[in-house]
Amino acid sequence: MLPKSLVLALGLILAAPLAHAADAPFAKQEAVASQLRDTALKGSGAYDILESLTTEIGARPAGSTALLRAADWGAARMKALGYDKVTVESFKVPGWKRGAETAEVTAPFPQKLVITALGGSVATPAAGLSAPVVLFKRYDDLLAQAPGSLTGKIVVVTERIIRAQDGAGYGAGYRIRGAGASEAAKRGAVGYMLRSLGTDSHRVPHTGTMAYDPAAPKIPAAALSNPDADLLEHMLARGVPITVKMLLTPTFGPELEARTVVGEITGREAPQEVVLIGGHLDSWDLGTGAIDDGAGVAITMAAGKLILDQPLRPRRTVRVVLWGAEEIGKAGEAFAKVHGPEVANHVLASESDFGAGPVLKIGLPKTKGGEGFAEALMRVLGPAGVVYDRQDAVSGGADVEEMAELGMPVASLRQNGLDYFDWHHTPDDTLDKVKANELDQNVAVWSALAWMAADSAASFRAPAK
Amino acid sequence: MLPKSLVLALGLILAAPLAHAADAPFAKQEAVASQLRDTALKGSGAYDILESLTTEIGARPAGSTALLRAADWGAARMKALGYDKVTVESFKVPGWKRGAETAEVTAPFPQKLVITALGGSVATPAAGLSAPVVLFKRYDDLLAQAPGSLTGKIVVVTERIIRAQDGAGYGAGYRIRGAGASEAAKRGAVGYMLRSLGTDSHRVPHTGTMAYDPAAPKIPAAALSNPDADLLEHMLARGVPITVKMLLTPTFGPELEARTVVGEITGREAPQEVVLIGGHLDSWDLGTGAIDDGAGVAITMAAGKLILDQPLRPRRTVRVVLWGAEEIGKAGEAFAKVHGPEVANHVLASESDFGAGPVLKIGLPKTKGGEGFAEALMRVLGPAGVVYDRQDAVSGGADVEEMAELGMPVASLRQNGLDYFDWHHTPDDTLDKVKANELDQNVAVWSALAWMAADSAASFRAPAK
Repeated sequence: MLPKSLVLALGLILAAPLAHAADAPFAKQEAVASQLRDTALKGSGAYDILESLTTEIGARPAGSTALLRAADWGAARMKALGYDKVTVESFKVPGWKRGAETAEVTAPFPQKLVITALGGSVATPAAGLSAPVVLFKRYDDLLAQAPGSLTGKIVVVTERIIRAQDGAGYGAGYRIRGAGASEAAKRGAVGYMLRSLGTDSHRVPHTGTMAYDPAAPKIPAAALSNPDADLLEHMLARGVPITVKMLLTPTFGPELEARTVVGEITGREAPQEVVLIGGHLDSWDLGTGAIDDGAGVAITMAAGKLILDQPLRPRRTVRVVLWGAEEIGKAGEAFAKVHGPEVANHVLASESDFGAGPVLKIGLPKTKGGEGFAEALMRVLGPAGVVYDRQDAVSGGADVEEMAELGMPVASLRQNGLDYFDWHHTPDDTLDKVKANELDQNVAVWSALAWMAADSAASFRAPAK
Repeated sequence: MLPKSLVLALGLILAAPLAHAADAPFAKQEAVASQLRDTALKGSGAYDILESLTTEIGARPAGSTALLRAADWGAARMKALGYDKVTVESFKVPGWKRGAETAEVTAPFPQKLVITALGGSVATPAAGLSAPVVLFKRYDDLLAQAPGSLTGKIVVVTERIIRAQDGAGYGAGYRIRGAGASEAAKRGAVGYMLRSLGTDSHRVPHTGTMAYDPAAPKIPAAALSNPDADLLEHMLARGVPITVKMLLTPTFGPELEARTVVGEITGREAPQEVVLIGGHLDSWDLGTGAIDDGAGVAITMAAGKLILDQPLRPRRTVRVVLWGAEEIGKAGEAFAKVHGPEVANHVLASESDFGAGPVLKIGLPKTKGGEGFAEALMRVLGPAGVVYDRQDAVSGGADVEEMAELGMPVASLRQNGLDYFDWHHTPDDTLDKVKANELDQNVAVWSALAWMAADSAASFRAPAK
């Protein structure tokens, strides 16, 4: 036994019966949630949903016709699963499209490099861009360069991200992809490449968004596969000038349509009050979007289905949202435009968007009128391998951020993402990376949490000061 | 202790001092070989050689200018390492070159597929080849089809190879790649794709040679990455017709030049007698040829260097050969054309061509005048983690086959290849897959064996019946 003070210091509440279930707060909800958990762990149906999405649709970037097909798929699938109401919300996204993307060392060691354009990158000249390379092993070393000192160069940053269960490495490295091109351009560079923000060692580069600083010229930006980044490091270590030619031909066209699908399980007593869960339907264009974020789509759709299978609807409404433009950061904004006015009715929200690994920890917002909720929830989720993290800086995911800023309470369901950045945003984001039993564990957690929040009268808004 | 009968039944001789070293046969050779082993295990230099080859040359298919640069590299490197004599042998290889290689499902589930042309494949029509797919999960199921039954189809075979330490899965699957296109064509197919002969689950297809049966039409042939083979299985499981479009634009040109490099350590007493070791210098065109077969090149070049560092040359000559066209099966033939006449002078030969994993087992040919050789060798190699496999069906590697057929004795050095087919013949065959200490273990084994065979008077020719 740990002393109680230590348990509190660790921020954990261990799953143990604190009182006879019938006497405890949320006892009824806990009983149903335990059933949902056990049903999910025996086979939640999530894998079949994910298999269907990745097989029948595959890659579905926001703005593509594949995303429109995915929205049709999602709406049809939700109707078939028995959702009470399914709506599709249409919005516009920028018309960026990937083109050719090749690179090679032309001298003195001619070799091909495997690259992919970053989302939003401008094109190189049609004949390609040839320039000497300047390589920085740390991003801060690039930032330390004087303006003009990199004139005419292709800048390569090969800083590695660490492998971390919670994705901290990606978080720390994010700026290298997001801001690196403009930082290089401010110093005179004509092209930019980074080591992929990935923890793998395969010849599959990791794409992702970048943004241009209006104060700098726009230069083409790409990610190298990690073995290619290694290769450039080995070449540059010889102290001889290395010339690289890169060719990117992405295009910018008129705005395109994207769609978010909302499936509703209508509450039996307080249907205007909403518990919001979901994943994002769009994916990058390189893989089939299995882990990012077919998994989140499948987990939350399946969680909704298990709730629908209950003899009664929960007190409140559960909405399962399949956002249609997370990867380019446009879905949450569009969603808030439609649903912002109803924000006060939103009880609790969270997005599943960290792959298919099991949920390890839960963080909840402060509650009012919900005392005992976390304890009851953890009696359900402890046996599924989840701990309560009292210290969690709750965040609900990219697509609920705008609504959270308007006051919507959000919960964090933290998954094991140790392998997530091996495949994230690459051609390797495919179904074979997903284990059905881990999806089932996620469904157990999401269905239990959604049921308990939706069937109760708990509030997750912090008390007014 | 195991009973001696069991030890013999297992085909193993345990490494243990059977007699005082100075009294034992091959005692002098054993003493030097033990030193070579210990030196190699402390750092053999092989990794630096491999780093140089993969960085400065990279992919080097037979017939490419990169292979000619690699031959220059090999000759210069051997001279710098102090080899007594370095020669370059030029020969001709077919002028096949890879072109574009794309594929996609066009209906009813439009998705891109990642493929690579098999070496020697003909091209598709320039606009691509569109046809309905027939999928076989087992190659024998294709062979069971009647002539004409696959008319107009693209045949896909998705049989998996098993992961096995000795590469048995690849051996068993080899015919699927080598002969599948013609077997499909005999039954009317217009195109052929196989699941890669690989044990990985990455979006990197495995190329390799194939051959056409003159009795069948030549149809284009490609390997799918394994996740793409999975995807087609998932699609076909729906029982609906699937149409695939494949585009391959390889070209056949005039014969091209390839080169084999031979470095010699000239024997001090019987220089005409030759112990032959080596690896192949050519690689496939997709990766940088680190494991296949930069490793073998580096291991045997470094083994030779350790022998050169001895105060005396061995009695006999050691030749380190870097064959220049193994992947397309042309180097051994060219080598035998030059060296066949001297075959009687070749004492023992073997090629290192199974990646960079440690040597686990050794198989030797029957000996005459070499009694006690294996025992002495195993006293040296046992501490390096090697066992003697008395049952081994000795084979020396693809590039010594022709010389072996002429009577050259060959030895087998069996490596741990459990991961080898994760990367073999893919873009992922890069330096990061190699561990320096495992290369060192290989060098320990090769230098010890080469020294003992070359410094002794042992014969490995079976006694005349």
